[in-house]
Amino acid sequence: MTAATPAPAPFEAEFVAALTAMFEERIAFNHLLGLRIDTLAAEGVSGHLAMRPEFIGHFVHQRLHGGVISATLDAMAGLAVMAAIGARHLDEAPLDRLRRFGKLGTIDLRIDYLRPAIGERFTLRAEVLRLGSRVATTRMSFADAAGKLLATGSSAYIVS
Amino acid sequence: MTAATPAPAPFEAEFVAALTAMFEERIAFNHLLGLRIDTLAAEGVSGHLAMRPEFIGHFVHQRLHGGVISATLDAMAGLAVMAAIGARHLDEAPLDRLRRFGKLGTIDLRIDYLRPAIGERFTLRAEVLRLGSRVATTRMSFADAAGKLLATGSSAYIVS
Amino acid sequence: MTAATPAPAPFEAEFVAALTAMFEERIAFNHLLGLRIDTLAAEGVSGHLAMRPEFIGHFVHQRLHGGVISATLDAMAGLAVMAAIGARHLDEAPLDRLRRFGKLGTIDLRIDYLRPAIGERFTLRAEVLRLGSRVATTRMSFADAAGKLLATGSSAYIVS
Amino acid sequence: MTAATPAPAPFEAEFVAALTAMFEERIAFNHLLGLRIDTLAAEGVSGHLAMRPEFIGHFVHQRLHGGVISATLDAMAGLAVMAAIGARHLDEAPLDRLRRFGKLGTIDLRIDYLRPAIGERFTLRAEVLRLGSRVATTRMSFADAAGKLLATGSSAYIVS
Repeated sequence: MTAATPAPAPFEAEFVAALTAMFEERIAFNHLLGLRIDTLAAEGVSGHLAMRPEFIGHFVHQRLHGGVISATLDAMAGLAVMAAIGARHLDEAPLDRLRRFGKLGTIDLRIDYLRPAIGERFTLRAEVLRLGSRVATTRMSFADAAGKLLATGSSAYIVS
Repeated sequence: MTAATPAPAPFEAEFVAALTAMFEERIAFNHLLGLRIDTLAAEGVSGHLAMRPEFIGHFVHQRLHGGVISATLDAMAGLAVMAAIGARHLDEAPLDRLRRFGKLGTIDLRIDYLRPAIGERFTLRAEVLRLGSRVATTRMSFADAAGKLLATGSSAYIVS
Repeated sequence: MTAATPAPAPFEAEFVAALTAMFEERIAFNHLLGLRIDTLAAEGVSGHLAMRPEFIGHFVHQRLHGGVISATLDAMAGLAVMAAIGARHLDEAPLDRLRRFGKLGTIDLRIDYLRPAIGERFTLRAEVLRLGSRVATTRMSFADAAGKLLATGSSAYIVS
Repeated sequence: MTAATPAPAPFEAEFVAALTAMFEERIAFNHLLGLRIDTLAAEGVSGHLAMRPEFIGHFVHQRLHGGVISATLDAMAGLAVMAAIGARHLDEAPLDRLRRFGKLGTIDLRIDYLRPAIGERFTLRAEVLRLGSRVATTRMSFADAAGKLLATGSSAYIVS
């Protein structure tokens, strides 16, 4: 779909470090969950989550709680929007770009649960389907370590 | 809409105690969040959540993370389905009814974020719009201590 | 929830007539479906739809096509947002208010199908849960002539 | 994601003809909209829709009504589930497989509107993300003739 789009300039180390610190540390609930960023690009972001006993939703099956899935996919979708906005404003200083994220707000979220989430480690992806001047729409996925799709999502954000 | 429906028999103390223990303690992620049940009835359930620093999603505004909202509304919706199933099988022993909940699974979830969630304590409600033989559909709400609506949701469950 | 809110001034006949003509006639697909307005207020709107053979989705059961439900609930939600915007700008001339609706766009839509839609006439309602400066969130319902709830929905709109 | 899955046996001409007749003719609302099937496979289906004046949602911009998008994506998602079920039961006679579709019901639907839908012809796709024994989850897309993505969707179905 975006084959003809030129590859965006890579982010500066300063921007990546500041965005990572904000996402993984300063957003306290992301820190509580231990959600970590793996890749950051304008077209999409990825991350991972390690299973913990306190994330269990179904004690008999040792299944991950659906709320951990919805919370982390919501967070990853927001990160994808930040990366897309960051790429659109590469002319600005890194910290000025970060300041733009203060206006970002989730409008709504949909999660489709496909399969029971059982495993030691999960991988998350989010991509921006469209970044408009007012609204961004994202798609997300949650998979196990073998790449099996466990949940998908869709989310809308207000961006300015 | 259900004005003509006879009020369901109240749940036995044994059922309430067992369901509460399961929901608040044994579902580990609910326990981590500190989600507590306030009322349990066939027509709907309510509960509350106390704000904590580690639930923050936006450090500047001290706003609750959207993922805490989606996770707790998902959990409350599941509880509402359990209460509705429990009321449909009042002829069974309390613990037999609890065993039915093992088959319950979230199909999908939608959350609409209406206003920034700021406060010390939040109240949550969920009601079952329809409990079929295969699928249950729920509606949820998340409000602040003054009753202002902060988020709403909708969820579908497979029940057997 | 809105008990303390003063009742909005009623709309002028000119506004009602112009909005009705736009909704029922000039929005061609609403006209094709025969969707009609019953009430128009800032807090919510209602309307109805008559069953027709060409709306059938399941020929064996003579069930209404789900797409007629999603299409008409989407339309009613948009109408509810127009009424809410209209009520917010009662200081403007009716036709100036109508001009504001050109900026309105659906961000997304969720429909929950509760029961098979069988009947001669259906009633639709939509209310605005929140009208912000940028985004409006609505809730909708689709019922049969006896008031039985057949489907519910939720929708987000960009308003400016 | 499904690279290792063997390609399903192609459908018999009799099955394709019967499913096409049912979808394009006997589902009256699909016929009213003129929705046509282009491809039918277990992994996904595609179709197209020609613009008509009566499908207009916004008379100034000649934009397609959002309800046409939601209605046709819902229909395509149902078709994708039928194809996936059909492929799972290739051992049955074609018409026996068709009879299975009577139990199919949409649980819910989400549509994300990305861009104004303007054009003479639109292409629709739907794929089944997971076909379980009870629930199927699908993803859909709606594009213009140039392949530009105008809307996406997600839907859940009860299958037995």
